[in-house]
Amino acid sequence: MSLNETVPTVSPNALGLKVELGRDRPIRLDCGVELGPIQVAYQTYGSLNADKSNAILICHALTGDHYVADPHPITAKPGWWSELVGPGRVFDTDRYFLICSNVLGGCMGTTGPMDENQETGQPWGLDFPVITIGDMVKVQARLVDHLGIDQLFCVVGGSMGGMQVLKWAQTYPERVFSAIPIAAAARHSAQNIAFHEVGRQAIMADPDWCDGNYLKEGKRPHRGLAVARMAAHITYLSEPALHQKFGRNLQNRDTVTYGFDADFQVESYLRHQGSTFVDRFDANSYLYITRAMDYFDLAAENGGVLANAFRGTRTRFCVVSFTSDWLFPTSESRAVVHALNAVAANVSFVEIKSDKGHDAFLLDEPEFHATLTGFLDGAAAHRGLPRQTSGAGP
Amino acid sequence: MSLNETVPTVSPNALGLKVELGRDRPIRLDCGVELGPIQVAYQTYGSLNADKSNAILICHALTGDHYVADPHPITAKPGWWSELVGPGRVFDTDRYFLICSNVLGGCMGTTGPMDENQETGQPWGLDFPVITIGDMVKVQARLVDHLGIDQLFCVVGGSMGGMQVLKWAQTYPERVFSAIPIAAAARHSAQNIAFHEVGRQAIMADPDWCDGNYLKEGKRPHRGLAVARMAAHITYLSEPALHQKFGRNLQNRDTVTYGFDADFQVESYLRHQGSTFVDRFDANSYLYITRAMDYFDLAAENGGVLANAFRGTRTRFCVVSFTSDWLFPTSESRAVVHALNAVAANVSFVEIKSDKGHDAFLLDEPEFHATLTGFLDGAAAHRGLPRQTSGAGP
Repeated sequence: MSLNETVPTVSPNALGLKVELGRDRPIRLDCGVELGPIQVAYQTYGSLNADKSNAILICHALTGDHYVADPHPITAKPGWWSELVGPGRVFDTDRYFLICSNVLGGCMGTTGPMDENQETGQPWGLDFPVITIGDMVKVQARLVDHLGIDQLFCVVGGSMGGMQVLKWAQTYPERVFSAIPIAAAARHSAQNIAFHEVGRQAIMADPDWCDGNYLKEGKRPHRGLAVARMAAHITYLSEPALHQKFGRNLQNRDTVTYGFDADFQVESYLRHQGSTFVDRFDANSYLYITRAMDYFDLAAENGGVLANAFRGTRTRFCVVSFTSDWLFPTSESRAVVHALNAVAANVSFVEIKSDKGHDAFLLDEPEFHATLTGFLDGAAAHRGLPRQTSGAGP
Repeated sequence: MSLNETVPTVSPNALGLKVELGRDRPIRLDCGVELGPIQVAYQTYGSLNADKSNAILICHALTGDHYVADPHPITAKPGWWSELVGPGRVFDTDRYFLICSNVLGGCMGTTGPMDENQETGQPWGLDFPVITIGDMVKVQARLVDHLGIDQLFCVVGGSMGGMQVLKWAQTYPERVFSAIPIAAAARHSAQNIAFHEVGRQAIMADPDWCDGNYLKEGKRPHRGLAVARMAAHITYLSEPALHQKFGRNLQNRDTVTYGFDADFQVESYLRHQGSTFVDRFDANSYLYITRAMDYFDLAAENGGVLANAFRGTRTRFCVVSFTSDWLFPTSESRAVVHALNAVAANVSFVEIKSDKGHDAFLLDEPEFHATLTGFLDGAAAHRGLPRQTSGAGP
């Protein structure tokens, strides 16, 4: 019985697609290393139209992957934006051709530190070059080349995905008809770097990390990675959401136990978040991807002036933030909007009222979804996309 | 050469005082265990007046101790409220008699999990009973008995110290003439429990923790404790303070290194916070004291209604919060004030404008210090304390 039969999916390729890129022409990373060939795992939904004008690139977040609307091959949970993908949905698969690839440095099929370094025959580990958001985007651009697409109708993503959206719009303005950075920022803040550093130190403090060589040693730094995830997970929620969801409720008991078991539901929940994460994520990937986010500073990359990143742009932007997001607060989105306004870009800015914190972009937020639909409809009209592309496929 | 000679101090007993309590009458803890005898390490400043009406009990925070205004015996850094203690200062040692004791479960001289369990001859480790804020306060009350003081002129403290202040006011209303809970709350929030749980899991994930028996094994879980401290430290600051202090500034370099060294100053700072903390703090004490804070819920302890905790009180309260404190936000202080108002208590409420986050109560905040002085002056007048007690001492 295949996965397709057990769990409904909108994709004909539920286990994902894979392509090798950069064999003849390695990818020059920001750190100076030439990397190639690399494997890129990706997924598509819907059909590319005849003039290749209906492609939407979805960029995933730190611990996301390309299983946007398919069951995750390890956890079997629905894809992270399942609710948004399908016929008649926000990302209407009758109308748009959706692409999402696992980021460079990831651990779900795209080349990253857990893969074999062909020069040594061993897993890369910490010999893998340190990557940037820009490097992730360069690889995605190669994939888009491979698919024969000149211009993306839209690039969209939340959190680190939103950083990629901004980097796309800066690097390839002609290739991005519209862009939706969600719950993102043009630079990682000191507080966010600090939280990432805690996570990295937790991983590196785990003796099973083995200086990054755990795969060679047949070990996994599960304890450190779980602590990293727990710390990060708090930042994805909001205090009101935690209060509403758990408050000080006890876990299957009437009174505290005067011990260090998970007395409180919030403790049990966090421990669960930590312990399930380690089954699906690679510790070194976590180090590399958090580092890429820390390094992201679009103003610094453009002469210290964020507006320079977008000078002359013709891309249509929709910037989205959430009121209770304290990891990527509205002020960060507003800075992006100000920069876009400074260069007279076409930009909408929507702050969604939500108590769900940073994670709101992954959750059921009707106003958010309506915002996406409305913006995409408008952009599609400007792009001259027909109201419905054939849903029948080739 | 004694410490007194090398570092100026206002105290005649710079290495602290110690007393054994509860030998004849053990202390009944909230968990049901009878504990005793216990050692209590404490410090005093100034002189107790003839009618013993000028004593102020200072309650320290999670990782604080009784070295309020003396150099710390391990770090040699000035005491945590040095600036506030001395002749003519906020806590005027010419006028008041200050007492501060290391909390039960601590690691600076008061009985805690690193001390010897006299029944086994081994360090307590996790056999130490789980304690509460109420238990800490019971021990302090025994110390106050020992000093022959019926009523404290004031009980004051920040953060966990503020929790103790509230517990004092509830448990011994007749013994507390005035009370100043600062940057505190009447219950630990879900988000705060979550951050504590991350810290505990980081400690417990360190193999050198040895299921709590590291002292027997001659080990110390320094890596786990450092990670716990790093995570907690972020919560003590504010995003604006981190941004102002560090922003994205690099550490002694012009460009990022494309590696996992501390490229950013904020990383270096956090690592320093973690690594210096382990020299002065015991990992099991960290588990026990964070647990005590998590358990604190003054409303739950009083029939579910916070106001019940203070019904009939004649204590004069001054509740203080800081605008940028997101660990114990003003809303928590306001809940205390509402409860006090509901029972017509004598209460002042001051929210201090500060960008220093939770740590503001330990830092140079003139408006905060003026608030303390003003409230203490007023309370002293009501208590009939002379404007100046003899500064000459006995």
